[in-house]
Amino acid sequence: MEKKKWIEQLSSIWDQATEEEKNFLTTIPERIQSYQNGTYQLLIDAYLQPTRKWLNEDTYEVTIPLHKGTENLLKITHGGVTATLLDISMGSLVNGLLPENVAAVTLEMKVNYIKPGKGPFLRCEARFISRSKRIFTVEGTVYDEKEKVVAHGTGTFYTITNS
Amino acid sequence: MEKKKWIEQLSSIWDQATEEEKNFLTTIPERIQSYQNGTYQLLIDAYLQPTRKWLNEDTYEVTIPLHKGTENLLKITHGGVTATLLDISMGSLVNGLLPENVAAVTLEMKVNYIKPGKGPFLRCEARFISRSKRIFTVEGTVYDEKEKVVAHGTGTFYTITNS
Amino acid sequence: MEKKKWIEQLSSIWDQATEEEKNFLTTIPERIQSYQNGTYQLLIDAYLQPTRKWLNEDTYEVTIPLHKGTENLLKITHGGVTATLLDISMGSLVNGLLPENVAAVTLEMKVNYIKPGKGPFLRCEARFISRSKRIFTVEGTVYDEKEKVVAHGTGTFYTITNS
Amino acid sequence: MEKKKWIEQLSSIWDQATEEEKNFLTTIPERIQSYQNGTYQLLIDAYLQPTRKWLNEDTYEVTIPLHKGTENLLKITHGGVTATLLDISMGSLVNGLLPENVAAVTLEMKVNYIKPGKGPFLRCEARFISRSKRIFTVEGTVYDEKEKVVAHGTGTFYTITNS
Repeated sequence: MEKKKWIEQLSSIWDQATEEEKNFLTTIPERIQSYQNGTYQLLIDAYLQPTRKWLNEDTYEVTIPLHKGTENLLKITHGGVTATLLDISMGSLVNGLLPENVAAVTLEMKVNYIKPGKGPFLRCEARFISRSKRIFTVEGTVYDEKEKVVAHGTGTFYTITNS
Repeated sequence: MEKKKWIEQLSSIWDQATEEEKNFLTTIPERIQSYQNGTYQLLIDAYLQPTRKWLNEDTYEVTIPLHKGTENLLKITHGGVTATLLDISMGSLVNGLLPENVAAVTLEMKVNYIKPGKGPFLRCEARFISRSKRIFTVEGTVYDEKEKVVAHGTGTFYTITNS
Repeated sequence: MEKKKWIEQLSSIWDQATEEEKNFLTTIPERIQSYQNGTYQLLIDAYLQPTRKWLNEDTYEVTIPLHKGTENLLKITHGGVTATLLDISMGSLVNGLLPENVAAVTLEMKVNYIKPGKGPFLRCEARFISRSKRIFTVEGTVYDEKEKVVAHGTGTFYTITNS
Repeated sequence: MEKKKWIEQLSSIWDQATEEEKNFLTTIPERIQSYQNGTYQLLIDAYLQPTRKWLNEDTYEVTIPLHKGTENLLKITHGGVTATLLDISMGSLVNGLLPENVAAVTLEMKVNYIKPGKGPFLRCEARFISRSKRIFTVEGTVYDEKEKVVAHGTGTFYTITNS
C-alpha cells in the first residue's frame, strides 16, 4: 500500500469519527511511536501501555491505563485484558531473574475475576510463591485505583534455554 | 487534537517505518473501520479480529489471525492473547444462549499452555462442560493451523441481570 | 500396644456403635486386608477402594464407592474426595504410560465442582489433552451413577527420574 | 455382621501384620472413637485428624499429621491429601463466617504442588482474597514442619441456603 492511499483512508476515518472515537484515534500515533522508538518492544505493549517497576526484589508491578480499547461489551475491563496484565506481570517477574540465555514460558495460569475492572487504571503486583531451578510458581493480584482487588492469578513458569 | 496535526504525526510515522512495520501500519485503517462500521463492537476485537461461528448448538468457534501484534518477545503468540481468545470463545458460547437482559461474567478461567502458538492463525473451540440456571462451566481448546493443540482452558461463568 | 488391649478397644467401640456406624465398622477388616494382601498398595486406596481400568489406550477410568467415609457435613461427597479421585485417575493415566524408572508428579490440578456427588459411586474418566517428553496435560471428568457430570478437572504432570 | 466375626477378622489381621502395619492399626480405635465421641463429625476427618484454629479473624489454620495413610507410591504426601487439606482449610474459613442456615460450597479449586510433602505434619493457612455477599475467593498455603511451602491453592466458594 502506498503512503498516499493510507493517509487518505485515515483522513476519511477521522472525518467520520465521533468525538469519543477521536479521543482514541488521537492516541494511535503515540502508541505506534512508542513501538518505533523502542519504548515498547511489542505491539501488544504499545496497545496496552504497561508501566513496569520492581517494588522490591521479590515483587514486580505493572500498571495499565484503562480506556475504550480495554473494554468489553459491559463497558468494564475485558477479561482477556486482565489475564494479559497478569501474564505480563508474572512473566516479567520470573524473566527478570533469569540469565540472558534463559527464558521462562507460562505452563499454566489461573485467573479469579473478583470485581469489575473500572477507573483510570489497573495495577498488578506479582510475587513468587516458590522458585526452584526450572519451575516457578507465581501469584499476581490486580488492584484498581481505590486499591480494591479486581482479580487474582496464579501461574506456573518453566525455563527453556534459548539456543 | 486537530486532524491536521494527527495526519502529520501519522505521515511522519510512515516515513520512519521499516517494511515490516509498514505491513502492520497498512492494516490499521481497516481495523478502525471495522469498529466504526460496527463489524466489531469492541476495539479489542478490532485489534484481534476474531471470526466467530457456531459449529453446532453446543460448540462455538473463534479464530484470530496471528501477526506482529499478537507476538511476545520469543516471537510466539503472547500468553495474554491466547487467554483472551479463550475468554472470548467461552464467554461468547455462554452469552449466546442467554436472553437479552442477562449477561454472564467470568468468575474464573484457567489456561494450560501446551505448545508455542505459531502459524497464520489460532482457532478455539469452546463447549459446555455443564450448564445450570446461573452457573456455566465451559472448556475451550486452542488449535493451530495443523490442528495441534496449543492451549486448553476451563472457565466458570455466572449470570448477572442487567438493570 | 498389645493385641489384647487393641481388641478390647475395638470391642468397646462396637458395643457403643449405632447401626449406621456398624455398617461402616464392618467394612474395616476388608479394607485392611485389601492392603495387607496387596490388592491396594496404599492405605488411602484401602480407604477409598478405587477400581481401575483402561477404557482404551488414551482413557483411564477409576470408580470409587460412596459411603459415610466420603461425605462432608452436607452429606454429599467431600470436595477433597472428588479431588483425590481426579488426582488418582489423572496420575494413573500418565504413570501408566511411563517406563518403570520414571514417575510423574502433579505440578498443578484444577477442579470444577459442578453438582453434588451423590449415589452409590463416582466414576472418573481421565484422558490426555497433550503429551510431550516431560510434560503431560490431562483432563478428567467425574460422573455419578446417572452419568451426570459431577466435577471436571485438568492437571499438569511432570516426569522425574527415580534414582 | 456379628460382633464375634468382626473381632475374629481383626484378630487375624493383627496376627498377620508387620510392625509398620501395627503402628497404623493401633491408631484405628482412637480414630473411630474421635468420630463416635463427636471430636470429629466426619469419618474423613477421623482419617486425616485435622487440628483447626483461627490465627486471626481473617486466617484459618488446619494441621494434619502425616503417616502411612497419607502417602502415595513415592512415599510422599498423596496429592489428594494435600488437596483435601486445602479444601478443608478454605471451606472452614468461609463457613466459619456464615450464619447457621447458610453453607458455602466449593465452585472450583486449583492446587499448585510445589515440593514433596514430607515430615511429621502439614499445616495450611487459608485467608480471604475477597468476599462479597455470595461469592468468596480464598487462598491457602500449605507448609511443612520447616515452614517450606509445599503447595498453594486458590478456590471460589458460593453460598447456598439450607432449607
